[in-house]
Amino acid sequence: MSTSSESALSVFGAGDINNAAYVRSIIRQGRWTSHTSGLASEHVQGNVVILPADEANDFLRYCQRNPKPCPLLAVSEPGHAGLPTLGADLDIRTDLPRYRVWRHGEVVDEPADISALWRKDLVTFVIGCSFSFEEALMQAGLPLRHIEQQRNVAMYRSNIATEPAGAFHGPMVVSMRPFKASDAIRAIQITSRFPDVHGAPVHMGDPAQIGIADLARPDYGDAVEVLPDEIPVFWACGVTPQAAIAQARPEFCITHAPGAMLITDLLNHQLAAF
Amino acid sequence: MSTSSESALSVFGAGDINNAAYVRSIIRQGRWTSHTSGLASEHVQGNVVILPADEANDFLRYCQRNPKPCPLLAVSEPGHAGLPTLGADLDIRTDLPRYRVWRHGEVVDEPADISALWRKDLVTFVIGCSFSFEEALMQAGLPLRHIEQQRNVAMYRSNIATEPAGAFHGPMVVSMRPFKASDAIRAIQITSRFPDVHGAPVHMGDPAQIGIADLARPDYGDAVEVLPDEIPVFWACGVTPQAAIAQARPEFCITHAPGAMLITDLLNHQLAAF
Repeated sequence: MSTSSESALSVFGAGDINNAAYVRSIIRQGRWTSHTSGLASEHVQGNVVILPADEANDFLRYCQRNPKPCPLLAVSEPGHAGLPTLGADLDIRTDLPRYRVWRHGEVVDEPADISALWRKDLVTFVIGCSFSFEEALMQAGLPLRHIEQQRNVAMYRSNIATEPAGAFHGPMVVSMRPFKASDAIRAIQITSRFPDVHGAPVHMGDPAQIGIADLARPDYGDAVEVLPDEIPVFWACGVTPQAAIAQARPEFCITHAPGAMLITDLLNHQLAAF
Repeated sequence: MSTSSESALSVFGAGDINNAAYVRSIIRQGRWTSHTSGLASEHVQGNVVILPADEANDFLRYCQRNPKPCPLLAVSEPGHAGLPTLGADLDIRTDLPRYRVWRHGEVVDEPADISALWRKDLVTFVIGCSFSFEEALMQAGLPLRHIEQQRNVAMYRSNIATEPAGAFHGPMVVSMRPFKASDAIRAIQITSRFPDVHGAPVHMGDPAQIGIADLARPDYGDAVEVLPDEIPVFWACGVTPQAAIAQARPEFCITHAPGAMLITDLLNHQLAAF
């Protein structure tokens, strides 16, 4: 999911790739329609779910009941395209590089702008993303194999059921990162400080205990090797709400396209609880 | 290591077994010469090491370099029997239920009072003890098997070397508690809040990675079962400094007798870092 620095250079030019508002302005102009990994990397990026008001009420309760996979960073006013706590200029209709439009649980389009689809009853949810805690883990010197190997993180449908709300239900999706024991202990400490971006792991060790039959066959993302002296550590994952939406099959829904996240003005370290 | 409540009742009578100063006064009178587990259980208990000034200087550097096994709660002025930060009335010569007197690395006596042995060059070290974090773990609802089974915690000499200072050196001794994965994650969070009483674990999972050949054969304490769905979690242990003293063989040294700790006025929750 790493951004090609060559193509980023040609798009962003001499501008500051670490400035969230600048990067968002380039995206708003339709000049960047790809992954956001590596862009404004000190800034919080978010998963996005946009639903009509009726389903939005159910989905808000779903997130409240499942804070580890669905930590809410912001919820918009119905029909408002702004999210002022995440960026003064932010317009959710234009500020994602690419969107997925869902109808009855199926992806029907992947546009780079949803202005033409906007409705007065739409509510936007921004959900924390593991990019934030991964930055903290890397700053602490912990190796992240999927990043070293330029792969997506490995994700699995677990047998941990989420708490349903309305039509939204389904298994918790988890991401897995392998660590040596002492690094796993440190990773638990560090991610515990970031409850708004999934927080502490939900499991570690034997994958079968949470219904994962084979680590080499992830349900999403790419497999990464777990060495004999390593412990697989599992975090609740922001793909969980997308899986719940696919099961709930709402009449209409818009999400970010995989890897094309919302870049906010918040700094990752601002999310630290202590 | 649990205190017989019947014998405690006969000694402490109607007095408050949870009042540290009262319990210490009974000990000072020589009326309680046994284990302190379960006495004033909300209060911090400490491992005690008393050394002549020359060795004390080396030992202070040893503790500074090895804060996980040797977290210092207090160090006395040379020759002073008081430890005012741990209790206004505290007198280290009388306030432990039982002492061990060491000469050249061998235990030569186990008195209940060391007033006759006191010297003007003696320095007292009080080192944090896992009783404090065990209280926090139990308050969080985490099961501690050795306590459920009324055994001592299992302790092992690891292959993790401590940082030497002067004559003091040796392996880190670790205590092991088995937990299910989700409880192990919670235990890491909770003990991370208590760096003055060993803090976060130093290892978990495969015992062989830290040089432990057989969990069923601890070097100190009692073996406890690790169930198939559990992870053994290892903390640095306050027996480490006693092992270093046995190796350094100082001319003279006094410690607490096993399980007969110093009861302080500090409350366990006061040690929480956050």
